[in-house]
Amino acid sequence: MEFSLQNPTIAAKTLTTTTLFSSILPFHHPQTLTLPKRKNSLSTKSLHSIISCNYYDQQKLTVSSAADEVLHQSPRVYVGHSIYKGKAALTASPKPPEFTLLDSGAYKVLREGAVLLQFAPSVGIRQYDWSRKQVFSLSVPEVGSILCLDAKDSCEFFHDPFKGKSEEGKIRKILKVEPLPDGSGHFFNLSVQNRTMNVDENIYIPITKAEFAILKSAFNFIVPHLLGWAAFANSIKPESSSNNTRYDTEQEWGR
Amino acid sequence: MEFSLQNPTIAAKTLTTTTLFSSILPFHHPQTLTLPKRKNSLSTKSLHSIISCNYYDQQKLTVSSAADEVLHQSPRVYVGHSIYKGKAALTASPKPPEFTLLDSGAYKVLREGAVLLQFAPSVGIRQYDWSRKQVFSLSVPEVGSILCLDAKDSCEFFHDPFKGKSEEGKIRKILKVEPLPDGSGHFFNLSVQNRTMNVDENIYIPITKAEFAILKSAFNFIVPHLLGWAAFANSIKPESSSNNTRYDTEQEWGR
Amino acid sequence: MEFSLQNPTIAAKTLTTTTLFSSILPFHHPQTLTLPKRKNSLSTKSLHSIISCNYYDQQKLTVSSAADEVLHQSPRVYVGHSIYKGKAALTASPKPPEFTLLDSGAYKVLREGAVLLQFAPSVGIRQYDWSRKQVFSLSVPEVGSILCLDAKDSCEFFHDPFKGKSEEGKIRKILKVEPLPDGSGHFFNLSVQNRTMNVDENIYIPITKAEFAILKSAFNFIVPHLLGWAAFANSIKPESSSNNTRYDTEQEWGR
Amino acid sequence: MEFSLQNPTIAAKTLTTTTLFSSILPFHHPQTLTLPKRKNSLSTKSLHSIISCNYYDQQKLTVSSAADEVLHQSPRVYVGHSIYKGKAALTASPKPPEFTLLDSGAYKVLREGAVLLQFAPSVGIRQYDWSRKQVFSLSVPEVGSILCLDAKDSCEFFHDPFKGKSEEGKIRKILKVEPLPDGSGHFFNLSVQNRTMNVDENIYIPITKAEFAILKSAFNFIVPHLLGWAAFANSIKPESSSNNTRYDTEQEWGR
Repeated sequence: MEFSLQNPTIAAKTLTTTTLFSSILPFHHPQTLTLPKRKNSLSTKSLHSIISCNYYDQQKLTVSSAADEVLHQSPRVYVGHSIYKGKAALTASPKPPEFTLLDSGAYKVLREGAVLLQFAPSVGIRQYDWSRKQVFSLSVPEVGSILCLDAKDSCEFFHDPFKGKSEEGKIRKILKVEPLPDGSGHFFNLSVQNRTMNVDENIYIPITKAEFAILKSAFNFIVPHLLGWAAFANSIKPESSSNNTRYDTEQEWGR
Repeated sequence: MEFSLQNPTIAAKTLTTTTLFSSILPFHHPQTLTLPKRKNSLSTKSLHSIISCNYYDQQKLTVSSAADEVLHQSPRVYVGHSIYKGKAALTASPKPPEFTLLDSGAYKVLREGAVLLQFAPSVGIRQYDWSRKQVFSLSVPEVGSILCLDAKDSCEFFHDPFKGKSEEGKIRKILKVEPLPDGSGHFFNLSVQNRTMNVDENIYIPITKAEFAILKSAFNFIVPHLLGWAAFANSIKPESSSNNTRYDTEQEWGR
Repeated sequence: MEFSLQNPTIAAKTLTTTTLFSSILPFHHPQTLTLPKRKNSLSTKSLHSIISCNYYDQQKLTVSSAADEVLHQSPRVYVGHSIYKGKAALTASPKPPEFTLLDSGAYKVLREGAVLLQFAPSVGIRQYDWSRKQVFSLSVPEVGSILCLDAKDSCEFFHDPFKGKSEEGKIRKILKVEPLPDGSGHFFNLSVQNRTMNVDENIYIPITKAEFAILKSAFNFIVPHLLGWAAFANSIKPESSSNNTRYDTEQEWGR
Repeated sequence: MEFSLQNPTIAAKTLTTTTLFSSILPFHHPQTLTLPKRKNSLSTKSLHSIISCNYYDQQKLTVSSAADEVLHQSPRVYVGHSIYKGKAALTASPKPPEFTLLDSGAYKVLREGAVLLQFAPSVGIRQYDWSRKQVFSLSVPEVGSILCLDAKDSCEFFHDPFKGKSEEGKIRKILKVEPLPDGSGHFFNLSVQNRTMNVDENIYIPITKAEFAILKSAFNFIVPHLLGWAAFANSIKPESSSNNTRYDTEQEWGR
């Protein structure tokens, strides 16, 4: 995640709304989630896993947008893809890009979207404590690192949410994605040191090839949306094509 | 397929509608399908096969939705992709995810979609008995297993529709996808033991590389829709972007 | 292309409209096309080629649909992707699937779409004689064969438009796609024997890796649309999700 | 970029609007851009880089379209994907195809879209001089060359914006994409000789595997839109399917 390069006023607004949001959190303190017995077993050749949608995180988000829906033609949709394993659960959910309105009436991308990874430790059979969840927001190039990860490749990311702030260094997050010893997939390992809250969490979850294939398929699908290229593509209309001529032809004539 | 984690009332509703649906089935008892002679032959280098749309399965579905169409702006569309071979036919059709409306007016995914595989045995030249068809519903991670299947890989899934019910074990389904001996593709083998109906069916169908490429292309396309990520992507509108700011920035500030 | 399996009346209608269409053709007899000098040269490492949109074929199509536009909300769009080389030009254009309306008000795919390949011989520098063009319609599985074609693979298709008719054998079409000797790409070779018109045309065109990458990207994109899966995907609306429950849950309960 | 093959009047119009556009430029003379400190660091295993949206180029475009917005249902959206490195910045942005309205009321692609690459030299830490930016417009087949570029492959393109004009040769642009010595990715190198403006710029920027994966993902997504195939796909409506029959069946019957 990075600041917008040219719009301090918006950056400021961002901060306020963040605080405003934090004040809402208590109302949505996550709880422990218990999974029911499963109806079907999965591939006998893959690690035991359960896929479903993560209810609690989404919940937290909805509140802040309650008012927004009025402004919408198309309703907001919250999605995630969760993988439940013995020791932890992982939920990946896309974050939309932010656009800004230009005087011309056109829009431009203000900030690219991202993919939020949420890790929750297990606290018993099929029980995950989302109140202790740790989050890691993958920027677009970080998503790229994962997309080009082959069976034997690994990658590692370091985040400091307060980089460049007075609290810099108080929170350190390291995400490692490495091949499983038996070559059956990769493991995701998130370690978070949070001095302000005295948290030192280390969450590990194995992901099978098949599960990773789904993550990659979802990530590859969402990237053009995170970049705003899909919004651009949707704005391509044969009816309004003649307008394009104007700047289309400028491109290499400019110099 | 798994139960929703948080909505017993919907799970309950599901059961009723299922029974209700069953009562409709007799009206749509599948019949034997005869194929006409083909207009073109296919690649002389691939197994002889016929592609077309499976009429009878779709038929069964339409009835239950007759009333629904009124509720729709965009009409419901039933699709499948069928492969007809000497001994059997295979139809793959996507099942949409289920969404639930939140108090905020936003939607979240209640249950991910799936890909339904339907196998019908041949009962003569270009004749398939859909009344004896066997179905296997691929969950998203199972679709992932197939997506990452290389030329020499194989995978196997086991389903018990009644897992965790009193009838547990009365139906056993095993789907195997393995390379063809001559490396020209894979075969799909579905074996179903149904004690309640005294059925012990074993259906085998060879799929060429080209046919498998189409299945993979279709599966890879549909995965983001099964996850609901496409619905999320469609809800991204530059006009409503400022709303995103609110939760977009929360992500790593939460802790 | 194959007949619909269950709807003779539509098949019949197809024939009439075909004849009706033929009677229109003379008005749109293709002419020779001359290309202007190009503004930019292409990769110095790739064969010399020109990309643009094929005007004359599209033209032929538009007429027959002049009346249709009235019935449309979204206007019809004709597209193709053309590759111009020294001895011939190749245009690939997608053909939409056909849907049929069910009593329920829902739609199902009646016939899958295809990709039409049009080959025109060169009759001079940058001149192509579209009146002598030969067409080859790739079915979905044939598109699959091309999608899974590696650098050293080749494939071959045989079509008889009159297969199963009295004129069977009067037209024989063979399309070969084989690696170029120098490994710089593939060549497409279409040979057509038409006894009724005493035509014996053999058109050869080399396609670079880069050009093939574009064809594959376009083919891979269009496949889900040819199958109708994209129309299905577009019909997924969170708002109408509850309807899905009805058949969604039936899937493995049926038996 | 090539001329339309059949519509000189539009080509002419293109020139005027270009001049018209140039006269606007002074109002939007690019300025030097300073980046703020970043909030998060990126993968410790990838070159240091910053991703964000390029404000100034987009700005230039918006003006010319101020009037257009009135004509739009869906607002115009400007997008790019930028990679900032020590010595230079690179922004890739898609250019839509141009359509033309046919008498039938249908549309056809007049000219395929492209991907515009904009290179700006660094003039200090996190400072880039967009007034000295150099642009290179990738045609669809050139995008194809980049899409099929493997880890050890390289490609090279030569452009002369004035090819075939009196000013031919006054501007020479060469874009090279080659593997980095350490195999960590590719570098993009644009050299521009502009005699009319006495410019001889040579801009070099290293791109990591992950960044390249994002570019490829975005390019692969946008290609069907540049070809107009996505517009065609969007025009596929089950409701208007019967119309398709008319030309759908013509295809191989024509001869």
